[in-house]
Amino acid sequence: MNPSATASTANVPTLRWNGKPENGRLVLIDQTHLPSELRMLECRDVETVGEAICSLRVRGAPAIGIAAAYGLCLGLQPVAFADETIFHERLLQVADFLAGTRPTAVNLFWALNRMKQKGAELRGVHSPIETLTGLLAEAKAIEEEDRQMCWDIGQHGQVLLEDDTGVLTHCNAGGLATAAFGTALSVLYAAHQAGKRLHVYADETRPLLQGARLTSWELQQWGIPVTVICDSAAAQVMRQQRVSAVITGADRIAANGDSANKIGTYSLACLAAAHKIPFYIAAPSSTFDLSLPTGQEIPIEQRSSEEVSRAFGRQTVPHGVDVYNPAFDVTPAELIHALICEKGIIQPVTKERIAEVISEET
Amino acid sequence: MNPSATASTANVPTLRWNGKPENGRLVLIDQTHLPSELRMLECRDVETVGEAICSLRVRGAPAIGIAAAYGLCLGLQPVAFADETIFHERLLQVADFLAGTRPTAVNLFWALNRMKQKGAELRGVHSPIETLTGLLAEAKAIEEEDRQMCWDIGQHGQVLLEDDTGVLTHCNAGGLATAAFGTALSVLYAAHQAGKRLHVYADETRPLLQGARLTSWELQQWGIPVTVICDSAAAQVMRQQRVSAVITGADRIAANGDSANKIGTYSLACLAAAHKIPFYIAAPSSTFDLSLPTGQEIPIEQRSSEEVSRAFGRQTVPHGVDVYNPAFDVTPAELIHALICEKGIIQPVTKERIAEVISEET
Repeated sequence: MNPSATASTANVPTLRWNGKPENGRLVLIDQTHLPSELRMLECRDVETVGEAICSLRVRGAPAIGIAAAYGLCLGLQPVAFADETIFHERLLQVADFLAGTRPTAVNLFWALNRMKQKGAELRGVHSPIETLTGLLAEAKAIEEEDRQMCWDIGQHGQVLLEDDTGVLTHCNAGGLATAAFGTALSVLYAAHQAGKRLHVYADETRPLLQGARLTSWELQQWGIPVTVICDSAAAQVMRQQRVSAVITGADRIAANGDSANKIGTYSLACLAAAHKIPFYIAAPSSTFDLSLPTGQEIPIEQRSSEEVSRAFGRQTVPHGVDVYNPAFDVTPAELIHALICEKGIIQPVTKERIAEVISEET
Repeated sequence: MNPSATASTANVPTLRWNGKPENGRLVLIDQTHLPSELRMLECRDVETVGEAICSLRVRGAPAIGIAAAYGLCLGLQPVAFADETIFHERLLQVADFLAGTRPTAVNLFWALNRMKQKGAELRGVHSPIETLTGLLAEAKAIEEEDRQMCWDIGQHGQVLLEDDTGVLTHCNAGGLATAAFGTALSVLYAAHQAGKRLHVYADETRPLLQGARLTSWELQQWGIPVTVICDSAAAQVMRQQRVSAVITGADRIAANGDSANKIGTYSLACLAAAHKIPFYIAAPSSTFDLSLPTGQEIPIEQRSSEEVSRAFGRQTVPHGVDVYNPAFDVTPAELIHALICEKGIIQPVTKERIAEVISEET
């Protein structure tokens, strides 16, 4: 294993750009069809990328950011040879459109801001097509940096895991959620590569079952033993001492360490505390939003009730019954044993320690 | 509302006997089709009853006991006019068959033991057909007593709930799980009838979604506001102070108060403790198994991995991946604020207090 390996470990990267700036395409795994079918989606325009993010065809905070960066390039192709003013107006419109797809993962805004900044830098000096070429290079840099950050997260984090141990994870924080390797799963892959024997328990993760469908699929391909459980069985698995650590990813981490992640993560953190099991969160520095003092300020996406009530096409909740379906919850810093990012392990999880590690030059 | 009302509140009882002892039928709601379809299953033989219990067409500890009592009568119809020895041998065989359908709910064994005892009492004095008539009367008595116990549970328990409050429940401990009214839901129905305004949060309850499909259906018919959530969102609902009590049923309660109930109940009890919310269990005295000192001795049914991996006919877990699917977990007595049974409220939950209340003559 090294940082240039493919993302999904199935020799198919989570997403990739094919072709030239002015007429290339973004190709991504349509994750809604996994595990039964490995279907690729070729995005020829930004609307397709926007829909793919909204519908979770591509998901995971880092992967959303990368998809948005490439999506911005697609959105600029129609004006690649247009007037400079038109090109740069369009750049801001497309960025706004992409920023509106999902509210919680900060990596989306982080990537779009970086792309806007690059666009502004190139304005005046370069023609629209040259600027688009520069923007595509920036998107590729974001992807490549993510791959490297995920690799480094794994290397830093794996020292926290012992040999011959059980680990619980939630949702999918794997290669499919990033350019490659993942965040929480990168830690498991690195431990596995280091010769540590692991048994992973994967919460199925209702409503969209990313744990059952994606995490177990990734782990199976890595040859790491994995058992899928219903989310509600996690407490029982802890009580039976089947796991000695819990590790998840995050979609946004506030300055004090409060972390938004898939609904159910806060539940796991409470249960881990009750069972005296360390609870870890792994995320690249692009997931940290130091502009928010605490998790209270993180906007939480409310998703359609039909994700719950019409699971897999069958009506499971009577018509007319209310459903509450927050996509995320916020785990307070005091329940997080350590944060793992590409710059190292942040422990204890305090505002000061986060500022110190995140501001380090690498 | 009074104890003679129908069970499901849809004017269709959960289960009922139709006809004479020698050729009558057990008719029950096939709960696997709810909420989309109210389909009745007419059981003409004990094998059909056994399959219905195994497949959760009829479920809920008290309802399983009642179904088994009637199932025993069905199993004796072919020998209603046979030799006495044959009749009583068959009685034990049929009881053994029914006892093998599900291991955790003690009401099943309790009801079958009561039927066997009645059969033994009538032996010698009465002919097989007279004994069968007596057994059917006993099954009807079990059903009628359950209806009354559930009614009384509601009356005792509702004093624990305040006006204008949110309550969280798990799985289905309603009229569909009993002869009528339910256990946990009987408390809510009684509070509602007493004029208390409630908002119920119903865990959908993976893997078989009894909360989404059955509990919300019952509450909707009672006109009690209900919101369905994914099981993993319960902690978030508690943190947001949407609920001030958690109440569930039980499948078996040991002498010290440790209680087996649907997987996820232990998780809720831990989370309720972490959020300083009282956690209650409601169950008739037939659910108490004073022969078991603690919950450690309660056998936990392991169910098919396909309940998790092939939800609603679609493969959600990759082939070859392991699934752990315990049907129940055990909540330790110290996490239970009070037990509510037809004889009153058991608080604190201790071996002594349980013995005192359960042994009371009514």
